[in-house]
Amino acid sequence: MSIIAVGSVAYDSLKTPFGERERVLGGSATHFSMGASLFTKVNLVGVIGEDFREEDIELLKSKGINIEGLVKKEGKTFFWKGEYGENLNEAITHETRLNVFAEFDPIIPESYLDSNILFLGNIHPELQLKVIAQVEDRVNFIAADTMNLWITTTKESLLKVISKVNLIFVNDGEAKLLTGEKIVVKAAKKLLEMGPDFVCIKRGEYGASLFSKEELALLPAFPVEKVIDPTGAGDTFAAGFLGYVDKFGNFSFDTFREGLKVGTVLSSFQIEDFSVERMKTLTIEEVENRLNLFRRYIR
Amino acid sequence: MSIIAVGSVAYDSLKTPFGERERVLGGSATHFSMGASLFTKVNLVGVIGEDFREEDIELLKSKGINIEGLVKKEGKTFFWKGEYGENLNEAITHETRLNVFAEFDPIIPESYLDSNILFLGNIHPELQLKVIAQVEDRVNFIAADTMNLWITTTKESLLKVISKVNLIFVNDGEAKLLTGEKIVVKAAKKLLEMGPDFVCIKRGEYGASLFSKEELALLPAFPVEKVIDPTGAGDTFAAGFLGYVDKFGNFSFDTFREGLKVGTVLSSFQIEDFSVERMKTLTIEEVENRLNLFRRYIR
Repeated sequence: MSIIAVGSVAYDSLKTPFGERERVLGGSATHFSMGASLFTKVNLVGVIGEDFREEDIELLKSKGINIEGLVKKEGKTFFWKGEYGENLNEAITHETRLNVFAEFDPIIPESYLDSNILFLGNIHPELQLKVIAQVEDRVNFIAADTMNLWITTTKESLLKVISKVNLIFVNDGEAKLLTGEKIVVKAAKKLLEMGPDFVCIKRGEYGASLFSKEELALLPAFPVEKVIDPTGAGDTFAAGFLGYVDKFGNFSFDTFREGLKVGTVLSSFQIEDFSVERMKTLTIEEVENRLNLFRRYIR
Repeated sequence: MSIIAVGSVAYDSLKTPFGERERVLGGSATHFSMGASLFTKVNLVGVIGEDFREEDIELLKSKGINIEGLVKKEGKTFFWKGEYGENLNEAITHETRLNVFAEFDPIIPESYLDSNILFLGNIHPELQLKVIAQVEDRVNFIAADTMNLWITTTKESLLKVISKVNLIFVNDGEAKLLTGEKIVVKAAKKLLEMGPDFVCIKRGEYGASLFSKEELALLPAFPVEKVIDPTGAGDTFAAGFLGYVDKFGNFSFDTFREGLKVGTVLSSFQIEDFSVERMKTLTIEEVENRLNLFRRYIR
């Protein structure tokens, strides 16, 4: 099986209460691909500039990530400068330079079209729709992530995306903003009425939940003792979740329930270091050990 | 088995986004007793004024709550006026009239001294110490609740309480404030070093966790669709937790793990209506049904 991952590939300059880093590898498609590559074959779609470092290409390749869909364009790679205060759930953006990402026109290579799952990272809903149009008759499952910005600026397009995907990832605040509901459960139910089969609510350090029309799965977060940089935690969560589902090979709620645990544990590793540092060395054995610990805590 | 419950008995005037009520029954000892009475015999210790309504006495009696330790004094009952905004996790206090509670001198009746558990509601740590001195050689287990106010104003006394109890209830913020740690897990571990065998971290709508030196239990909150008034949710959580433990009859971590679930479910009922309204009619069957649902969600 395999997953198509579409999203941003970026360089991030980050400041957290625990340190800072300049121009480190980031972006939703990067974090997702690095995480999911532990479980399955990832087919990456993104755009990079001429400044993109050869070592970063090599890193992606070393994880078995297919970069046929990673297009190099004249100009510079998407750049984001952000900071986290004591509340690690929220980033403050200091600078966003779209660079080559401004012209991102995601084309899915023919060789990707036998993939099982499509993951749409948090990009403009119109781009997400363009990708969906290319693959909806081919892949078995489509999941999309989004953010507040698109809810407030391009809600119509976003609602179209939501109506076409099997699963939508949102956080509490986004779910409430999208639906006008004050209580998360009610917001999730309203989102289910908009089309998707599943709604996954991410609550950062407070865990995650998955809603279908018939079922509900609730999970606390893994109790981390070390948080260095939360950037990419949401994409890594989606990567563990969908990576496990793809590897396991079916779309039953019980598989998803397990996927939720894998995503939770995978993102608990991601935040232990800056950028993709922890993912570079993470092994499937480390994930399984922490997963066993987590199962014991929540039993 | 039975539990001694020491704390405030009050009249509350409440405003929430869902309505308001004047001078309804409240107080930590009241909420705890009403909740725990579903599971076990409760021996209440508190003080009331001459304005305390006969119907409220009758309500407590109707739940089998022993009110031998509920003393009536000249003057008025403790009065609190509070409001909740969109963030139901935090109350804004508009008025606090201690009235007879200002002279509260908790005396534990001789007939209470064969109780199994002591629950100390959120009152002045010096009063908690006075109660501990009266019962520590008699009861098998002591649990205490506290609040930010005592951490900032009488920390020395509070640390004495923490060193003498078996279990301390705190929320995330209190745990961090008490220990100076930024990460909850680290704060909980530091609290364990201060003396208690167990630290229970309450996170309101985000769930709860229980730490011992060897074990850890994590729970999400029950996904409520109806929240009318969160007053007393923490005391009701403690009531379900300790009520179950007392009924089950041992202090093993596995019993506590189940108690945590019972407390979570019980408090999910409490917040469905103002004051003790929901607890008046709640049956053990309703609790068991929701507990089964909860077990399914978190499995």
